[in-house]
Amino acid sequence: MNEVAVRLGVNELIAAYVDCIDDDRLEDWPDLFVEQCRYVVTSRASHEAGLQHGVIYAASRGMLIDRITALRQANIFEPHRYRHIVGPISVEHVDATVASAHSNFIAVRVMHDGEMSLFAAGRYLDRIDVTSQPYRFIERLVVLDSQKIDTLLVIPL
Amino acid sequence: MNEVAVRLGVNELIAAYVDCIDDDRLEDWPDLFVEQCRYVVTSRASHEAGLQHGVIYAASRGMLIDRITALRQANIFEPHRYRHIVGPISVEHVDATVASAHSNFIAVRVMHDGEMSLFAAGRYLDRIDVTSQPYRFIERLVVLDSQKIDTLLVIPL
Amino acid sequence: MNEVAVRLGVNELIAAYVDCIDDDRLEDWPDLFVEQCRYVVTSRASHEAGLQHGVIYAASRGMLIDRITALRQANIFEPHRYRHIVGPISVEHVDATVASAHSNFIAVRVMHDGEMSLFAAGRYLDRIDVTSQPYRFIERLVVLDSQKIDTLLVIPL
Repeated sequence: MNEVAVRLGVNELIAAYVDCIDDDRLEDWPDLFVEQCRYVVTSRASHEAGLQHGVIYAASRGMLIDRITALRQANIFEPHRYRHIVGPISVEHVDATVASAHSNFIAVRVMHDGEMSLFAAGRYLDRIDVTSQPYRFIERLVVLDSQKIDTLLVIPL
Repeated sequence: MNEVAVRLGVNELIAAYVDCIDDDRLEDWPDLFVEQCRYVVTSRASHEAGLQHGVIYAASRGMLIDRITALRQANIFEPHRYRHIVGPISVEHVDATVASAHSNFIAVRVMHDGEMSLFAAGRYLDRIDVTSQPYRFIERLVVLDSQKIDTLLVIPL
Repeated sequence: MNEVAVRLGVNELIAAYVDCIDDDRLEDWPDLFVEQCRYVVTSRASHEAGLQHGVIYAASRGMLIDRITALRQANIFEPHRYRHIVGPISVEHVDATVASAHSNFIAVRVMHDGEMSLFAAGRYLDRIDVTSQPYRFIERLVVLDSQKIDTLLVIPL
């Protein structure tokens, strides 16, 4: 693998992830994962304790699709959007087929009336399939700094 | 165009943009645009509705210069500065002369007494002239997530 | 020096810096600096006035180690962590041995009870030794936008 090419591909995947969530194109979001993926939103305390579950847990792309379908049908939450800001991305090769990456992020939440607040901060821990273009997530762990967020979390982070 | 070179040039332009605003070197700001440029600050709702105007609108470098002159003379606002944080920048070639880019940003506002707040969040949608160094903006759309910001906006974002 | 390689090395150093602080691996932090280093946290007003001191000042790696030792022993402050978000990094070669870099950052503070706030915003001004891998800081100036922060600052920024 050419190192610069891998970095560019990882950057594009992470940017595409943020774009489809922040643009409310949530139906495109599961397609950024491989079929047999793992997506977990957890807190730092749970992650450091080695717990495998989280406030959101999905073990396949199908579960991600189900989540978006449910979110669209439910509509019991007050409409809001996120704006993600991701910091510099660290990329390491695992082997010829997988790269690992980690990055810091914050998510600003914008309510329908324009009210804006710092909603979440944390870290992305990723394993990425680099065997075909575009790259896809094998695993994305979203490790939140705060545990206070749980009940408000509807849209994936 | 060499892809990595274009990415570096785009990154430098976007970093220079933020630096001159955050350092209060606003007189350098218009020079980051081509003569026949377009600079618009708008809200997501207006942008998605296809409206061409914005809370700030300039259709030439001269209008950008006028804006800074007015801002320096007026001085009716409480002194403040911004600190911009820009996320990963996505770059696409349009053709041999133009690149397009988009990125997420937040702007923290720092008042003279040190009071600090999350002032703006949104997206930069750019078209960039890559025919000569340094690169310059042909168009920069600043699409704000919130519509509540209008009356407070003095310094460009 | 190959320009892309230098940029990657600088990015890795700055990401490693943030990681060891945000992960509370503070004992690893001094090792990111050369022996004869300079680390200063100051305010924009002091920096622009040309003042050399700061709210934190260290003139050697030993002083950085002392600071962490004191912080670990004292424990008189309420436990908290940071989450840094760093924007795009501008890198310039100074000569064959030194690179200079600057970047914007914010630090979110997360208290033990999960309370989260925008704690600091500012700029990193770096001089970096690029003669051996991994790169190390010769000088890191942390220029804070606000002067209100002083008494709360325990963990390095």
